[in-house]
Amino acid sequence: MPKKIAVLAGDGIGPEIVAEAIKVLSFLNTDMNLGLVFENALIGGAAYDAFGTPLPQTTLNLCKNADAVLLGAVGGPKWEPLAHAVRPERGLLGIRSELNLFSNLRPAILYPQLVEASTLKPEVVSGLDLMIVRELTGGIYFGQPRGVHVAENGEKVGINTKIYSESEIRRIAHSAFKIAQKRHKKLCSVDKANVLEVTELWRSVMTEVGKDYPDVQLSHMYVDNAAMQLVRAPKQFDVIVTSNMFGDILSDIAAMLTGSIGMLPSASLDANAKGMYEPIHGSAPDIAGQGIANPLATILSVAMMLRYTFNQPDAAERIERAVNSALDSKVRTADIYSEGMTKVSTSGMGDAVLNAL
Amino acid sequence: MPKKIAVLAGDGIGPEIVAEAIKVLSFLNTDMNLGLVFENALIGGAAYDAFGTPLPQTTLNLCKNADAVLLGAVGGPKWEPLAHAVRPERGLLGIRSELNLFSNLRPAILYPQLVEASTLKPEVVSGLDLMIVRELTGGIYFGQPRGVHVAENGEKVGINTKIYSESEIRRIAHSAFKIAQKRHKKLCSVDKANVLEVTELWRSVMTEVGKDYPDVQLSHMYVDNAAMQLVRAPKQFDVIVTSNMFGDILSDIAAMLTGSIGMLPSASLDANAKGMYEPIHGSAPDIAGQGIANPLATILSVAMMLRYTFNQPDAAERIERAVNSALDSKVRTADIYSEGMTKVSTSGMGDAVLNAL
Ligand SMILES: CC(C)[C@H](C(=O)O)[C@@H](O)C(=O)O
Ligand SMILES: CC(C)[C@H](C(=O)O)[C@@H](O)C(=O)O
Repeated sequence: MPKKIAVLAGDGIGPEIVAEAIKVLSFLNTDMNLGLVFENALIGGAAYDAFGTPLPQTTLNLCKNADAVLLGAVGGPKWEPLAHAVRPERGLLGIRSELNLFSNLRPAILYPQLVEASTLKPEVVSGLDLMIVRELTGGIYFGQPRGVHVAENGEKVGINTKIYSESEIRRIAHSAFKIAQKRHKKLCSVDKANVLEVTELWRSVMTEVGKDYPDVQLSHMYVDNAAMQLVRAPKQFDVIVTSNMFGDILSDIAAMLTGSIGMLPSASLDANAKGMYEPIHGSAPDIAGQGIANPLATILSVAMMLRYTFNQPDAAERIERAVNSALDSKVRTADIYSEGMTKVSTSGMGDAVLNAL
Repeated sequence: MPKKIAVLAGDGIGPEIVAEAIKVLSFLNTDMNLGLVFENALIGGAAYDAFGTPLPQTTLNLCKNADAVLLGAVGGPKWEPLAHAVRPERGLLGIRSELNLFSNLRPAILYPQLVEASTLKPEVVSGLDLMIVRELTGGIYFGQPRGVHVAENGEKVGINTKIYSESEIRRIAHSAFKIAQKRHKKLCSVDKANVLEVTELWRSVMTEVGKDYPDVQLSHMYVDNAAMQLVRAPKQFDVIVTSNMFGDILSDIAAMLTGSIGMLPSASLDANAKGMYEPIHGSAPDIAGQGIANPLATILSVAMMLRYTFNQPDAAERIERAVNSALDSKVRTADIYSEGMTKVSTSGMGDAVLNAL
C-alpha cells in the first residue's frame, strides 16, 4: 500500500523550501523504492485567500487520511489585520489539535561547519546537540475559557487558561523519557512549579512517570532558570521536556544558539508516530519569492519523517549525511553565509544535497 | 521626617549581600544627610521557620508603612517540600501584590570590565544597556481560577489563568513609555498576540497608549521571537515591556547575556514610586554562608532606590560610580572572577565600593 504524504507548502518562503524537500524525497522515493505518494493542499494565509479559512475541511481531511504531513510555514503581515479565528496560525494550530500531535520534537544541533554562525562563543556551543520535547496540543494554547470580554465596570478583560490533565502530562512524559533513553539518558523537565499550580501537577506527574524509566536521570528546572542556563551552558542539557508555551520560547532560544535557525527541523507526533514535519523557522515574508531561503531545515524535516513515521532510518541517515556533505562542500545560503564560502540559492542548496545523495 | 526602609534579608545569601548594601547606604546616609532609617523583618523561608508563614503580618505592615523595601532573596531546597501556599516565594509574591508594585524595572547592563564574562561574543554584547519593564502584579501569576482539582473521570487537572484588564495594561504601558522617553525612545512590547487573546488586548492597549507618546517608537514582537532576538542581536533593544510570566523569562535571558547576573539590580514600583528593591538573582543556597556571594546587585539596587523612591539621583550616581571604580580596581567576587583579577569576599567587595565612595 502506498504511503501518503500531505504536502502543505503554506505561505511566504514555504513553497520554495518545500519544493526542495520534495525534490530530495522524490529522488530517494525512486532510488530506495519507498512507495511514497504526495498530495498538495492549501493552508494558512494561502488557504484563507482561496477559501476564507486557514484550514479548509479538504485540507484537514487530506491530513487525516495521510500517514504524514510536510508543512512549509504559515503567516505573514498581509494577514495580521485578520480576526484571530481566521489567522494563518490558526490553520497550523488546528492541524496540531485535530491530528492529536501532542509530542513536538525540536532538536537543536550545532553543525561543526557553522560554529562561527552562533552569537555564542565557540567553547560554549560547539558540539551542542540537545532535543526539546514540547507538549503541543494542550496548555494555554488551547485552554478554555479564553477571549476578551467586557467586565461590569465597562473595561475589557482578556483571559487565557493554562490547563493540563494528568493524562496529558503523562503521555508527553512517556514520549520524552523514551527519547532520552535513546540519547544520553538525561531528561530535564521545565516548569514554574514555584508559582503555577498547573506546573506543580506537571512536576509530580513527571516524577511519577520517571519511576518507569530508572535508567533515565530526571531533573527539574524553573523556566526562567532554564532560559538562562540555555545561554550560560547549553551543553548541560540532553533532552528537555516542557509545556506548549514554555516550549515555544525555549525551543527558539535553543535554535538561535546554533546560529542556524534555517537548519533546524521538527516533528510533531501523535500516539502512533503519525506526524507533521516542518522547519522550526517561520514564513520569512521579507525574503519570500527571492529564491534565497535556506531549504535545509525542511529537507532535514523530511529525514525526521522517514525516521519517525516511516521507520526508514537508513533513508533518514542518507539525507542527513548528504546535508553534511553539502555543508562540507562549502555551499551556503545567505542566512549561513560567511567569508570563503560559495553563496547559493534555495534550489542551489537543494541540488547540492541531491548531488551528495 | 525620616524616610523608612524595611530591610528583608530573606534566605540563602540574602543576609550576606544585604549587609553589604546597608553598609554602603549607611555611609551615604550620614555623609549626605539623607535621613534614612532602617528596620529589619523576616520574609520567605526564614519567616516560615519562625512563624509558619512566609509573609507574617508584622512584616507586611512594616513594608506598608515604609517608603521603600530592600529585599535580599527568598527560597531554597529546604522549603521545596512545603505546600504552595507557604513556600518562601509566596512571601515575595505577597508583598508585590499587597503593595501594588506593578512596575518591575530590570536593567541589563554589560559592564565594560566584564565583557569576557558573557558567553556571547564581545561584538554582540559589548555596550549592551537595555531595560525590561515587567508587569508584576497581574497575569498568570495571580489570575483566578487556579489550582489542582479532580475531574469527573477521576484524574487531576491543573489550572492557572492569564488575565489582564485594560487598566492593568494601561498603567504598565505608561510606566514603560515614560522610561523609554528618558532613554533612547524605543519601546518593544512583547506578547503572543497570534495565539493568546489576552495578549491581543495587551497589544491593542499598548498601541492606544502609544498615541500619548509620539516621541517614542513603539514596536511589537512575539515572545518566542523576542527570546531569540535577545540571543541574536540584543543591542537592537532599548526598553522592552511585557507581562509577568514573559518578563520573568526574558529578564533572566537578558541578565545572563551580561554574564554577570550577580551584578543586576531591580526596582518594583507602585503608582507613587514607592518601591521594593532587590537583586535579580536568587538566594543561591549552594553558596550561602560562605561569604563569597557578589553583593553588587544589591548595592546597585540601593542606587535604584535612591533614584526612584527618594529622588536622590546624585546619591544614586555616587554608588554607581563607586561600583565602577571597584571593578576598575580589579577586585572580583568568584562569580565574575577571571585571570589577572584579585578575588575578594562578599564583604571585601562591599569594602571596595565603600572605599571608592
Ligand atoms: C506560528 C505559531 C502559532 C507557532 C507557535 O506558537 O506554536 C510557532 O511559533 C511555532 O513555534 O511553531
Ligand atoms: C522567585 C520567583 C517567585 C520570582 C518570579 O517568578 O517572579 C523570581 O523568579 C523573579 O523573577 O523575581
